[in-house]
Amino acid sequence: MSPAHPFDDDKPREECGVFGAIGVSDAANFVALGLHALQHRGQEAGGIVTHDPETGFNQARRMGLVRDNFTSADTMKILPGSIGIGHVRYSTAGSKGQTAIRDVQPFFGEFSMGGAAVAHNGNITNAMSLRRELIERGSIFQSTSDSECIIHLMARSMGRNIPDRMQEALRHVEGAFSIVAMTRTKLIGCRDPLGIRPLVLGQLGGGYILASETCALDIIGAEFIREIEPGEMVVITEKGITSHRPFPPRRPQPCIFEYVYFSRPDSVLGGKSVYEVRREIGRELAREAPVEADMVCTVPDGGTPGAIGYSQESGIPFEMGIVRNQYMGRTFIEPSEQIRNMGVRLKLNVNRALVQGKRVILVDDSIVRGTTSRKLKDMILEAGAAEVHYRIASPPVKWPCFFGVDLPSRDDLLAVKMSLEEMRDYLGVSSLKFLSIDGLYRALGEKEGRNPDAPAYYDAVFTGEYPIKLTDMAEQGLQFKVAAE
Amino acid sequence: MSPAHPFDDDKPREECGVFGAIGVSDAANFVALGLHALQHRGQEAGGIVTHDPETGFNQARRMGLVRDNFTSADTMKILPGSIGIGHVRYSTAGSKGQTAIRDVQPFFGEFSMGGAAVAHNGNITNAMSLRRELIERGSIFQSTSDSECIIHLMARSMGRNIPDRMQEALRHVEGAFSIVAMTRTKLIGCRDPLGIRPLVLGQLGGGYILASETCALDIIGAEFIREIEPGEMVVITEKGITSHRPFPPRRPQPCIFEYVYFSRPDSVLGGKSVYEVRREIGRELAREAPVEADMVCTVPDGGTPGAIGYSQESGIPFEMGIVRNQYMGRTFIEPSEQIRNMGVRLKLNVNRALVQGKRVILVDDSIVRGTTSRKLKDMILEAGAAEVHYRIASPPVKWPCFFGVDLPSRDDLLAVKMSLEEMRDYLGVSSLKFLSIDGLYRALGEKEGRNPDAPAYYDAVFTGEYPIKLTDMAEQGLQFKVAAE
Amino acid sequence: MSPAHPFDDDKPREECGVFGAIGVSDAANFVALGLHALQHRGQEAGGIVTHDPETGFNQARRMGLVRDNFTSADTMKILPGSIGIGHVRYSTAGSKGQTAIRDVQPFFGEFSMGGAAVAHNGNITNAMSLRRELIERGSIFQSTSDSECIIHLMARSMGRNIPDRMQEALRHVEGAFSIVAMTRTKLIGCRDPLGIRPLVLGQLGGGYILASETCALDIIGAEFIREIEPGEMVVITEKGITSHRPFPPRRPQPCIFEYVYFSRPDSVLGGKSVYEVRREIGRELAREAPVEADMVCTVPDGGTPGAIGYSQESGIPFEMGIVRNQYMGRTFIEPSEQIRNMGVRLKLNVNRALVQGKRVILVDDSIVRGTTSRKLKDMILEAGAAEVHYRIASPPVKWPCFFGVDLPSRDDLLAVKMSLEEMRDYLGVSSLKFLSIDGLYRALGEKEGRNPDAPAYYDAVFTGEYPIKLTDMAEQGLQFKVAAE
Amino acid sequence: MSPAHPFDDDKPREECGVFGAIGVSDAANFVALGLHALQHRGQEAGGIVTHDPETGFNQARRMGLVRDNFTSADTMKILPGSIGIGHVRYSTAGSKGQTAIRDVQPFFGEFSMGGAAVAHNGNITNAMSLRRELIERGSIFQSTSDSECIIHLMARSMGRNIPDRMQEALRHVEGAFSIVAMTRTKLIGCRDPLGIRPLVLGQLGGGYILASETCALDIIGAEFIREIEPGEMVVITEKGITSHRPFPPRRPQPCIFEYVYFSRPDSVLGGKSVYEVRREIGRELAREAPVEADMVCTVPDGGTPGAIGYSQESGIPFEMGIVRNQYMGRTFIEPSEQIRNMGVRLKLNVNRALVQGKRVILVDDSIVRGTTSRKLKDMILEAGAAEVHYRIASPPVKWPCFFGVDLPSRDDLLAVKMSLEEMRDYLGVSSLKFLSIDGLYRALGEKEGRNPDAPAYYDAVFTGEYPIKLTDMAEQGLQFKVAAE
Repeated sequence: MSPAHPFDDDKPREECGVFGAIGVSDAANFVALGLHALQHRGQEAGGIVTHDPETGFNQARRMGLVRDNFTSADTMKILPGSIGIGHVRYSTAGSKGQTAIRDVQPFFGEFSMGGAAVAHNGNITNAMSLRRELIERGSIFQSTSDSECIIHLMARSMGRNIPDRMQEALRHVEGAFSIVAMTRTKLIGCRDPLGIRPLVLGQLGGGYILASETCALDIIGAEFIREIEPGEMVVITEKGITSHRPFPPRRPQPCIFEYVYFSRPDSVLGGKSVYEVRREIGRELAREAPVEADMVCTVPDGGTPGAIGYSQESGIPFEMGIVRNQYMGRTFIEPSEQIRNMGVRLKLNVNRALVQGKRVILVDDSIVRGTTSRKLKDMILEAGAAEVHYRIASPPVKWPCFFGVDLPSRDDLLAVKMSLEEMRDYLGVSSLKFLSIDGLYRALGEKEGRNPDAPAYYDAVFTGEYPIKLTDMAEQGLQFKVAAE
Repeated sequence: MSPAHPFDDDKPREECGVFGAIGVSDAANFVALGLHALQHRGQEAGGIVTHDPETGFNQARRMGLVRDNFTSADTMKILPGSIGIGHVRYSTAGSKGQTAIRDVQPFFGEFSMGGAAVAHNGNITNAMSLRRELIERGSIFQSTSDSECIIHLMARSMGRNIPDRMQEALRHVEGAFSIVAMTRTKLIGCRDPLGIRPLVLGQLGGGYILASETCALDIIGAEFIREIEPGEMVVITEKGITSHRPFPPRRPQPCIFEYVYFSRPDSVLGGKSVYEVRREIGRELAREAPVEADMVCTVPDGGTPGAIGYSQESGIPFEMGIVRNQYMGRTFIEPSEQIRNMGVRLKLNVNRALVQGKRVILVDDSIVRGTTSRKLKDMILEAGAAEVHYRIASPPVKWPCFFGVDLPSRDDLLAVKMSLEEMRDYLGVSSLKFLSIDGLYRALGEKEGRNPDAPAYYDAVFTGEYPIKLTDMAEQGLQFKVAAE
Repeated sequence: MSPAHPFDDDKPREECGVFGAIGVSDAANFVALGLHALQHRGQEAGGIVTHDPETGFNQARRMGLVRDNFTSADTMKILPGSIGIGHVRYSTAGSKGQTAIRDVQPFFGEFSMGGAAVAHNGNITNAMSLRRELIERGSIFQSTSDSECIIHLMARSMGRNIPDRMQEALRHVEGAFSIVAMTRTKLIGCRDPLGIRPLVLGQLGGGYILASETCALDIIGAEFIREIEPGEMVVITEKGITSHRPFPPRRPQPCIFEYVYFSRPDSVLGGKSVYEVRREIGRELAREAPVEADMVCTVPDGGTPGAIGYSQESGIPFEMGIVRNQYMGRTFIEPSEQIRNMGVRLKLNVNRALVQGKRVILVDDSIVRGTTSRKLKDMILEAGAAEVHYRIASPPVKWPCFFGVDLPSRDDLLAVKMSLEEMRDYLGVSSLKFLSIDGLYRALGEKEGRNPDAPAYYDAVFTGEYPIKLTDMAEQGLQFKVAAE
Repeated sequence: MSPAHPFDDDKPREECGVFGAIGVSDAANFVALGLHALQHRGQEAGGIVTHDPETGFNQARRMGLVRDNFTSADTMKILPGSIGIGHVRYSTAGSKGQTAIRDVQPFFGEFSMGGAAVAHNGNITNAMSLRRELIERGSIFQSTSDSECIIHLMARSMGRNIPDRMQEALRHVEGAFSIVAMTRTKLIGCRDPLGIRPLVLGQLGGGYILASETCALDIIGAEFIREIEPGEMVVITEKGITSHRPFPPRRPQPCIFEYVYFSRPDSVLGGKSVYEVRREIGRELAREAPVEADMVCTVPDGGTPGAIGYSQESGIPFEMGIVRNQYMGRTFIEPSEQIRNMGVRLKLNVNRALVQGKRVILVDDSIVRGTTSRKLKDMILEAGAAEVHYRIASPPVKWPCFFGVDLPSRDDLLAVKMSLEEMRDYLGVSSLKFLSIDGLYRALGEKEGRNPDAPAYYDAVFTGEYPIKLTDMAEQGLQFKVAAE
């Protein structure tokens, strides 16, 4: 776990949001706004590349939040042009300071037919072997990021234009990718055949937008057109959009965790309102795991839609039993040891006067390590609650994700280390219930629950079933259950 | 309106939080945590002073948030000692850059019997005349802050010790003050006779804490003992607490806006849970101004308790119709012109899929200028809501506050410029209702509503009745209705 | 010794340069240039205050060199106006970081008749007792600097205008002062009755300039008019100059060390070219202390005029036996322990090929601790010189200066700890000679040498005779020989 | 011309210094010291790479001076290890801010057999065509620097180890190069067959050092062993040194400008003391161009050795007629327009009292544009000198250098635009004389002067004769006289 995020160690970490704009004046401003709306997908760093006929390609990469780095006139004026792309990222462990800035996307390369910049959300599962081969042939990597393989594959491609080169490059890549790329005149979007990470297309005046989520269209007043489909590549010029299908077709399996935790509640994903899915999860949870109590409270902010749904289904009032310090965000700080030990108090406070003597149902979106959950429960009991009933709006997290979600090692996952009963004892709550995997699928509209032969979503963190082969992991001798493709 | 806070120009601005600790090791860490919990009372700057027998008085003042300035080991190690005080502030218009840092409290002075530091929450209504007199007699002011008068009055006092000097100083001061001060060995707390701004006393192990609100006790795990009473001064040493009454007694009138907007919902104020008062306000509002609708939504985060209360009383479901970007906070940014025009979108997004075709009740805590409200309503209608019913959890804001709340000039207050009907038209909503002043008092437990002869709270922003004479304003030829003392 | 200046610990430290301009557009630019020319008088920090009818008084204070702080358009545009003053300083031990910035002059105070800023070069020998009295009467000091007393004395004065107040203030002050001050419309210069520190008046177009040295007039192309006389105060408005004599008359005794080390060689001081005085010192030294050798070398840059004079008088060729790294300056760095141990090598290198097998005369301006001298000699001998003859262009430094020169404590002065013979052994040179005190006076044109009954210069560091009583030192029980006034 | 260096626009610009160390603990400290000693070869930026078995390769690149960037413990502790290399550079026009940092050497690449870092002093005359070819084959360039070609050629080489790869890479390179490179365990030095830029080998305890000049050995107390020979590559491990000759042998032609201007006077180059060569140049100049005068003055600091030689030969006294502000250096500042117009005054001041009414011989090292010379002469005449005789310690600069020296375009060279007589008039001096090319060779010990058939030095800036073909220039249609190889 990175020491920089002590208060979110009990949550999976999102990894990356991407955004692109073409045909809009001062594209960098729109990219910055879009990245701000996608900040929940990555808070450690952000980068923007634009192109302008006079000054060529320009780029800025910064550690920290979009609002702190890409709002000053000084920064924005070095990013002129009507086409641009951007990326926000959550660091993987270890990289710090100067090194880290080299890992901040988009990556840029100058090719014989001109430059291209690439921003990648997802994870490449054969990156190690690709990187080794590329280095053997003379590529010099600038970063430690797996995503850099893509631009080196493009540099070596014989394709006559950049979209061709990207198609060729991506055919070598295994794993999850939602990509936004640009040349001097083209904005390119591409999504892996399974459609693991989201990518949507929008329109703003005469220009076009690509973004990880619809909330990034809303912030700039762009109109949602459609999702980029799994396995689709779109190439957008100022004249219009062409669609390509560079990969053999497969049954899509978008990531179920986007609904559970990652995407913003005001985004629409796969035709479904994320908020409404989560509220439905809360209702499902109330049906699966009812309990008598005086109030339903959320663990802010992730548990709120589920808590509302639970309250609506159960008729038990929804109350603000836990108050969040809004100056915390999931933001970046370097805490002193002492403050760090304060743990969750920096972020959340129990509404002492409210919960005293009451039976409280606490709804959270997920449990990873269980450390925060435990401290939170302590705070509620200290505050005098009579009972605490923990309800988790997802099944137990038991397996790693190799496709863009950062989880602690398996040994640190509470649901791996303990049985449900042991977890309840460890957390010290009156009762503990997780949503069932079928309940989760039902909340997503699959009336029969999960189809074990052809699950509609990528759900390996709950089930341990992976839809793509895991080349790098196999090289390291790690074996996982990979479903036949 | 300050350009630094474009998104909150439709809210009053809090002015200052204070915190002090004595008898705890590494007091600065506790002060930093306490100020972090009080950050909602002032985001522009913060300062901490500590005393340590070896290095004497040490101080650090910084522009920006506590989490950004007072969490690094480097900063904290220059603030050793077991006694310390701190202050967070919201700037008044105009001050920027180097000048501003000189205005950041606590103020410090070296007297013949040793040094003292003073942190002040409130506003001095005879500061102009005091300052003029002090300058005539040779005082050199370091800042533009009214609060600096206090330490100069102390410097000139003949009192033999610092508490005596502070008492003498405060007898010259008119207005609102909740003060936390320190010497090498004493922590001092004092509240003006009306008790306009809050101040509470807590205990942590063998040490004592003073803080603007109880939420700052919670964050460090301190136990709430009692409020400092209106007109009381407490002097705390490592041996214990003594209480003094330096002022002639008066009927207290704490500020009603602390309940409506300023204090955190998890604080307890005047024996009442702020959250429960606000929820009760929502219920009162549902009774005073019912309407048929499909959902009750909050304008996050201020309207949430009121919306919950309205939903509970009316039976109409509470839903997340508006989603807040948690990376915004009420935080400090320097926006480009273009981003600024995006207005409220940077902070809030309408949950488009949810509100489409629906009748929405929108609960907000207050309306000041009405600019944000109007943009928000636009966003909801654009998103396809069938009706928008605006419910405001406080009476119309019509008068300035001279006791620590920063409001726009009267001419910019929506409720001054327009009748209720005109406001409804201007905001373009289906209906608009404010809570009545009696309803507000009822929600605070005054069954008969407001007693016009002896109102229990300082409520001038709603009523125009001021409880203290306004020397500086009178000098400028501004006349307001001042209740006989 | 301050850790920030490891390479100059063998030299006295200058303390402060002052500069003022009136009647020139964009005065701050001229002040910055003037301070740059006076940078040798203080490298740690600098400050500028200007006044402009529209924005009032503006100020900027920065740690570090003028060239790094006061050259950007951003900084200069916050200092508008046609009148301004500035100050460069060399810190006294101990002050660091945030505290130090409060000690950076000019000091500013708002009085009932308007503001005034004061920049002071010199040292106040009754500052401790003044400060104590001022604090007792209610003054709050912002800094730890002795110079701040002056502005507090002015604040308390009953004088009806600022020049009157300054005269009254300075009558309470004992010690050395060359002051440049300003109001909204007046530039004021004042020099103590002994004229210990220099101050000159110049003209630039229709405007006037005050500066510590004439080299600061040259840099802006101003014409030298005359020196401010010892005991004189001039008040300059856009209309002209008036001269005042606020103090009882005394025989002047300007500081002799200005000629030996402090002032720049291109300045003219007391009607004498500093370069020519130093060259004459070198000639005197050649006559007093001749020796056979192959070359005369300087310890750059202080020894150069003396070495040229020695070479001219002796006929032995002047050569560059020691080369200075010009990226060092006497500049500010924070060295790692290891680099610090490299000592003098960072700054100076011996011209190995040149000195090998040669007899070298090395001319330096002064010896304080002797540490650098010793390392330097090591380097020359390592480089293979046959003999090293050390010639010092001033008498042995044996006493502290209380009037603006920072020397190590007496116990660390080489000439206090050792006899001439012991010094020669300690330094390990073939011969060591200092200039005699009479030789120094002769080089200054006093044909008879020093008149012990009425020495023409303040020369206590060589003689231990102080011309003014030392109130603070006496309070501390330190007794020095004070000449009858 | 870069706007950042307004005061040196009348001098050629050095381009780069290189340094490497192996077998010394905390190598980074020695590299930093060595680069500090080489700072005169490049002031815009510097970089250091080290290797440590535990943390692998580490690097730091910074804009600005070594003393400002590589002296803090914080920076140095991120550069552990007993092997390291470094580079200082002078930017070529145009690059600024974020882009520029990518151009700062050493360049680093990860190859299949491990990483390597390369620091290059010189210029590659077929860089454009190399770069184009490399991009076509898939290399992605990180910088705009020509030197980056070397590491990409290495990445593509089939050589089994890094020295082999470097040899292969350098066989493709045309131009001048003195290279210091490193792997995990090897320090590599290489010099082009002509030996245009210098490179020396030293020993420090059991470790070895490579450096551009001997002055960088002196600063760390290392012993000079020998120069790396033209066309030689040395590979140094902790066990010892092996020497290789990867190129066909040629008659060496080291750059004559290193003696005239670039190298530090305390360096020994080609077996000659640079100081003594320059002093001899001054003597030669006195013989070639005598004149009656009262004093010989230097234009600091470049002209000093020449002025000393001129004085010694002519018997006219050497005096400090011009004083340099030591806080200027050739350092980096961003001047306001107004300060910039002050031109040379910021750096130099005329010793007014000294030169008044005198006949002054002014010795400078070279004239490029003549702008500074002209302003300087103005200052001296303003100061009242009776006559100014300009003596230049090198022949007129008339041609570009393509091998590592940055000169203005030919059209801006004074000696191209004007005859000697016109130059004298333009500069407004009493007389103007340049050293002859034969005089320059004589000062270097070539008794017969320059041998036109086989000149001993690369001297194209004076003669227009280039020793290597100029591929990139020819591509651009620029033809120069290239001597048959």
